Amino acid sequence: MLPWSSRPHGAVRFVAGGTSIKPQPSPSGHAARYGYGRTLDVPFPRALERTRAGLQGEGFGVLFEIDLAGKLQEKLGVDFRNYVILGACSPPVAHRALLEDLDIGLLLPCNVVVYEENDGRSTIKAIDAQQMMSITGNPKLESPASEVNERLRKVIDGL
Amino acid sequence: MLPWSSRPHGAVRFVAGGTSIKPQPSPSGHAARYGYGRTLDVPFPRALERTRAGLQGEGFGVLFEIDLAGKLQEKLGVDFRNYVILGACSPPVAHRALLEDLDIGLLLPCNVVVYEENDGRSTIKAIDAQQMMSITGNPKLESPASEVNERLRKVIDGL
Repeated sequence: MLPWSSRPHGAVRFVAGGTSIKPQPSPSGHAARYGYGRTLDVPFPRALERTRAGLQGEGFGVLFEIDLAGKLQEKLGVDFRNYVILGACSPPVAHRALLEDLDIGLLLPCNVVVYEENDGRSTIKAIDAQQMMSITGNPKLESPASEVNERLRKVIDGL
Repeated sequence: MLPWSSRPHGAVRFVAGGTSIKPQPSPSGHAARYGYGRTLDVPFPRALERTRAGLQGEGFGVLFEIDLAGKLQEKLGVDFRNYVILGACSPPVAHRALLEDLDIGLLLPCNVVVYEENDGRSTIKAIDAQQMMSITGNPKLESPASEVNERLRKVIDGL
């Protein structure tokens, strides 16, 4: 039972073995519409550092870091809140998914965002891999996606 | 009318203004379940080079390149076909989407994959941004996602 099962209005997702999974928010986290996250009372750089360490501790490699605020400033000259996208990947799970569906690289890695709130706190959210993978229509991807969600939830809850 | 509207079995997507969009494969491309792509009779390095140039020509920045085969070799010691994931981003469209939904970084940038087929040809596919964004349940993201799809399709068709 994972909080990832929160669903946007009108969207459907596949369910393992025909069993419907009920939303069950974590005690420490809050369920987003298509992700799972928390807002912490720490400044942005500390939140980013903790997130990197948390992902590493749970066996995720970070395949990229995108400084979104920096990019928007550079390309459009607009100011934007501190906002970094981390691309988190568990190599064994990614490999299993690729053997199941060669095109799954279109949905890899799993994004984790860290951004600054208006009040100076920091929000960290991870994509709901099950919801994201559901667009493939391939129920065999349910298992790796579920495993990734469980581990991403541990990272977020442990921050 | 875009070929992006091909849908996996069992999945739904939102439609703009209540108008159903019919699948319409491009003459030069083939519609994938959740992406749009082509297989070209060129070797992998040339396909990668063309894809980078095509994205740039259509105003996309490439925010990351992941050498998936290299990562799988490094982390798991397994051999895998040549396979690169490019993270394509149109800064103005990304900015519009972020102003609509701060969490949309969970689904940015748009992946384009380039991989080697068993026969030495190369496949290039771009994510269907509309399908991907549909998991947000936010119909206001339909317009930026549709614009991105149209431009990604131009890139693929022009390869």
